Amino acid sequence: MKLINGKNVAKSVLEKVKERTLKYEKKPGLAVILANNDEASKIYVNSKEKISNSLGFKSSIYRFDKTVTQGKIISLIHELNENPEVNAILVQLPLYKHLDQQQIIELIDPKKDVDGFHPINVGRLNCGLKPYAVCCTPKGIIKLLKAYKIKISGQSVLVIGRSNIVGKPLSALLTLEDATVTLAHSKTKNLKSLTKNADIIISATGHPKLITADMITKGTVVIDVGITRQLTGELVGDVDFEKIKDIAGYITPVPGGVGPMTIASLMENTLELFEQQNKRQE
Amino acid sequence: MKLINGKNVAKSVLEKVKERTLKYEKKPGLAVILANNDEASKIYVNSKEKISNSLGFKSSIYRFDKTVTQGKIISLIHELNENPEVNAILVQLPLYKHLDQQQIIELIDPKKDVDGFHPINVGRLNCGLKPYAVCCTPKGIIKLLKAYKIKISGQSVLVIGRSNIVGKPLSALLTLEDATVTLAHSKTKNLKSLTKNADIIISATGHPKLITADMITKGTVVIDVGITRQLTGELVGDVDFEKIKDIAGYITPVPGGVGPMTIASLMENTLELFEQQNKRQE
Repeated sequence: MKLINGKNVAKSVLEKVKERTLKYEKKPGLAVILANNDEASKIYVNSKEKISNSLGFKSSIYRFDKTVTQGKIISLIHELNENPEVNAILVQLPLYKHLDQQQIIELIDPKKDVDGFHPINVGRLNCGLKPYAVCCTPKGIIKLLKAYKIKISGQSVLVIGRSNIVGKPLSALLTLEDATVTLAHSKTKNLKSLTKNADIIISATGHPKLITADMITKGTVVIDVGITRQLTGELVGDVDFEKIKDIAGYITPVPGGVGPMTIASLMENTLELFEQQNKRQE
Repeated sequence: MKLINGKNVAKSVLEKVKERTLKYEKKPGLAVILANNDEASKIYVNSKEKISNSLGFKSSIYRFDKTVTQGKIISLIHELNENPEVNAILVQLPLYKHLDQQQIIELIDPKKDVDGFHPINVGRLNCGLKPYAVCCTPKGIIKLLKAYKIKISGQSVLVIGRSNIVGKPLSALLTLEDATVTLAHSKTKNLKSLTKNADIIISATGHPKLITADMITKGTVVIDVGITRQLTGELVGDVDFEKIKDIAGYITPVPGGVGPMTIASLMENTLELFEQQNKRQE
């Protein structure tokens, strides 16, 4: 088993981002909207703010309590779209349930859509065109595989979970990388026969221990995107790590695998959007 | 073996379109741009015009010889976008090689993009939102499967060919229908083991006899999107029909399978765009 150290790869991505940022007089601006009560989201947003500041970005966090209205968020989005100091807008999902998430995502200027969730960016990705930004987690996973020189082209890759945030854009990216992708989900019947035949398994379901040792063929690459907090406080992935680690060819731990790559991609996307916008103005 | 008769299903789709069209005083308007030298394209466009007229649509075909410039096509697209009599714009692909196909597609008003190729429509489809129009061939294939009450949910579906026109949007639609989709292509290594394990195989490669009898498990549903004209003049699909027809559970012929469904979907899309645009104006 070879452990994939997401922390290390993320660190080297962030170092390059910091270096590139130093070259510019202006600083990349990242705006984050936090409108939910979710503890994990608060932790993510704090960590995004901290890293963003450490890179020399200008970050601003907009925190809302549950009395916030759709109209209020919409005005803020319009304001951020117009503000030339803001290059990247991130809406931390999920939003409070009374808010219309999709409407809000579609109001973000696609050029500032740092998460790559706007339909025009999703569409460009799926057409094989360059989106303004590519969804952070899928982008981070590809980077992680490449950092460990894991072959993607021609490999059978099983993606489990069909979310708009991970599973679907990841499948599109892997297909562009010439992998043969199978996208499995809650309605999939023969998961074990699929995992057994895959060269690479990427699980993004949030079901602890969905992937057990009997489902894995020796040497398979296992990437765990799931992250669930147990009642004990422990963070666990979709993969039964302890029992699988000696069967897998490569495996990501949880935490310390995919998670750090998501944040690193977010920072890289912020810088790329900044560069795109400043290039355009020249 | 049960033969899937695309002509019959298409006929019943077109009858419903005609009936719905009769209800309206105004007529749906379809504009088709033909800017290539391809014999097959000319035949398709003529057949689209004929069927469109038979339904009571107002169709106009814009034919260009190879001296046409990108600027000329762009002006025409702008004109058609503005023209309230035109509800649907179709650019017959491929275009002459000196033209920038993608730029032209992206200039079509997404509300009039009858092929569903504009990135915003591709993106909306992939996000599970309603696009203005869904790509015609994938839409036709889903309709064909449903007409024969072939189960899609939970089934393992192998799509071969990753084009923006068929393979990729079809995979997205099938995932929305709860199928477990594998998207194979020219870089796929183990095609036979994939075809052997699929409940439904949909081949869209244009490689005659890519799918041979030894690759098929008894009872598999085989949908053939390929259509290639042999030197003898004969039209053949991707599937070795004669040798597979008694192994497959269901099979589409070429011609007379998927082809008629593509045109039927185009007409249905034209009507749907007309209805959307007139609803919006009310």
